[in-house]
Amino acid sequence: MRTLKVALLGCGVVGTEVARIMTTHAADLAARIGAPVELAGVAVRRANRPRPGIPDELVTTDAAELVKRDDIDVVIEVIGGIEPARSLILTAFEQGASVVSANKALLAADGSALHAAAAAAGADLYYEAAVAGAIPLIRPLRESLAGDKVNRVLGIVNGTTNFILDKMDSTGAGYSEALEEATALGYAEADPTADVEGFDAAAKAAILAGIAFHTRVTAADVFREGLTEVTAADIASAKAMNSVVKLLAICERSADGSRVTARVHPAMIPRTHPLANVRGAYNAVFVESEAAGQLMFYGPGAGGAPTASAVLGDLVAVCRNKLAGSTGPGESAYAQLTVSPMDGVVTRYHVSLDVADKAGVLAQVATVFAEHGVSIDTVRQQGREGDASLVVVTHRATDAALSATVSALRSLDNVRGVASIMRVEGE
Amino acid sequence: MRTLKVALLGCGVVGTEVARIMTTHAADLAARIGAPVELAGVAVRRANRPRPGIPDELVTTDAAELVKRDDIDVVIEVIGGIEPARSLILTAFEQGASVVSANKALLAADGSALHAAAAAAGADLYYEAAVAGAIPLIRPLRESLAGDKVNRVLGIVNGTTNFILDKMDSTGAGYSEALEEATALGYAEADPTADVEGFDAAAKAAILAGIAFHTRVTAADVFREGLTEVTAADIASAKAMNSVVKLLAICERSADGSRVTARVHPAMIPRTHPLANVRGAYNAVFVESEAAGQLMFYGPGAGGAPTASAVLGDLVAVCRNKLAGSTGPGESAYAQLTVSPMDGVVTRYHVSLDVADKAGVLAQVATVFAEHGVSIDTVRQQGREGDASLVVVTHRATDAALSATVSALRSLDNVRGVASIMRVEGE
Repeated sequence: MRTLKVALLGCGVVGTEVARIMTTHAADLAARIGAPVELAGVAVRRANRPRPGIPDELVTTDAAELVKRDDIDVVIEVIGGIEPARSLILTAFEQGASVVSANKALLAADGSALHAAAAAAGADLYYEAAVAGAIPLIRPLRESLAGDKVNRVLGIVNGTTNFILDKMDSTGAGYSEALEEATALGYAEADPTADVEGFDAAAKAAILAGIAFHTRVTAADVFREGLTEVTAADIASAKAMNSVVKLLAICERSADGSRVTARVHPAMIPRTHPLANVRGAYNAVFVESEAAGQLMFYGPGAGGAPTASAVLGDLVAVCRNKLAGSTGPGESAYAQLTVSPMDGVVTRYHVSLDVADKAGVLAQVATVFAEHGVSIDTVRQQGREGDASLVVVTHRATDAALSATVSALRSLDNVRGVASIMRVEGE
Repeated sequence: MRTLKVALLGCGVVGTEVARIMTTHAADLAARIGAPVELAGVAVRRANRPRPGIPDELVTTDAAELVKRDDIDVVIEVIGGIEPARSLILTAFEQGASVVSANKALLAADGSALHAAAAAAGADLYYEAAVAGAIPLIRPLRESLAGDKVNRVLGIVNGTTNFILDKMDSTGAGYSEALEEATALGYAEADPTADVEGFDAAAKAAILAGIAFHTRVTAADVFREGLTEVTAADIASAKAMNSVVKLLAICERSADGSRVTARVHPAMIPRTHPLANVRGAYNAVFVESEAAGQLMFYGPGAGGAPTASAVLGDLVAVCRNKLAGSTGPGESAYAQLTVSPMDGVVTRYHVSLDVADKAGVLAQVATVFAEHGVSIDTVRQQGREGDASLVVVTHRATDAALSATVSALRSLDNVRGVASIMRVEGE
């Protein structure tokens, strides 16, 4: 029985765990695959670091050379970023190797080209670890729900921002203070932009939407709004509605089924929604499908060991396929639905205004909403020494209608400012 | 491109939905499989019922004849029960067909023999629908976690009993009253034995334990205790501890890794545990694994459409395999761990005693616990006109030690009765 050879690209937090588990659980992996699997090379950026458990002779700084070897069966890519990851993966396919990747940015930017290269080579491209870390999500969507019609995916797919929002919710802290704590505890990186501006979640939303709707969706198609503008007042306002603010990735099929949208933004959801109870840095994804109904998948969204679990599950699958001379499901983009911009998205809104505290203001504001066809659900007004805070929660309306409403509100003399606009989801 | 032919055995609630979706979503299924798939025959018990959407000429009462046809690629078995389901499935394999089954009782009783027959025929045996209805669970455990080590599975896998317990918790109703409502609403069958005595959950526990631990486990290996003895007082007592009573299926690996146990019984879990919030007839399964950490899968555990979603996901997978000339993962029982009886299970206990309300009783009771090596965590005593209620919550102890303690307690003159014993889990 031949031994399957694996090249590991990247040996940071995730790569180290992958290498460790491949060694400590070698017998289990062999039994599950049906053949032994061996680490044949590890590409790193800096060679001279101590890497306990990894023999020196396996370590190389020349990743390009490693993926060119003709004895490699599977390449595990945990470098991240677009280049050199893309070129390395394409070379791996040229050599006939299958690829397991945790690279959400690359898959969201250029997944179709990678899938095409895999298909041309008769190789597998698996990437369970790219979305929601350890949570089995890509495989259930690609395979378990392959006989169903997914209408909506609603997820908390970024642990850093969930930690921050959870902290703001539980302690009343402001955004900066909560971010500081996230950084101190290692939940946020030194440069938190990718997380707090929603880039990371948007890449995951693109991948999820593509799989859920059998349509090509890239990160550029995803509407994106981060959480840097979320204030303690917004959180308090959500609380008053028995809701909580979460940064959500939302992928939706339009009512007529012909279009899809993907978006990432902070939103208020009712505390009774299963996603509302997702605390700390955990992730969870809620899936609504025609036959199965409402499903939720919950677990750690990041971290070395959890991500390694997802990578190794994929490794077992692609190794089994190698031995059987088959491949798993490739890209499924047959539906080719139109990916619509944000304008047409229909949802509810929580609009917080600073207004003059005098007679007739509410009527003026209500008229503006009515003129733009945006129906009001509830209004809460609170006087504050000369001016007042007015919170309007709307019924469902298009993003375009809401934007036009807000523009018109800004031009009213009695509206001193639009303090915040937040979408209301999950109802 | 050839059309794949499917024989459907059983046309009740699930079978009807499977047939309906195969017709209404034929184009989607064909695109996802890579070939059209067609219903070639439907075996029913009574031929003369109206079956909208199913052409008369496909309907037969001779299931044995249908599975003997040599043009059938896949047999979907949604009859349930041991026979004739087992014989039909074995005949299907002999003909080289793959099988998709929702039959938990059969798989829990005789899964290994069926897997062996599938392997001998080079065919697939898939059964996502057998556990927790629509929730993708078998595939994630079999495949996504194939590179990880599962230590514990803790699940609410029976919707009927969860509905009953949830009703008792939210309204204070007793068991009989809650069961009556479940029956009236269609959540419980006329004969609820399989659900309320835990047989259904035990079959699912056996299937889950087998997959999670790569070891053969049958329903006979599963300790089983139903919920007919759960009283409103137990529910109230759980509430007092900020806990809730759930009927749990628990599959565990022993601390030294060499043994596994599987059990089904009512248990108190803290309200902060993710499983505590699973309401009504929903199911959820909590998985603890070495690398991935804590995962949870949540969704509808039964019903025609949800179960059909799981069946059709499997149908797509086995059809793809057929076209590729490959098969998916078969039985994985290489670990051959010892399946231990209940005696050695270690957990905490909530013991409710009726005692004489006089000095020295608590000391007597505490001594009995100490003599059997069962350490007490908390005690709550409440006087009631001459006698008293004494609730003891223990630290972790073996089932054997707890049983011996309870026997000794019963022999004390001052202990008038043991009102209830319930395990405490999820902490």
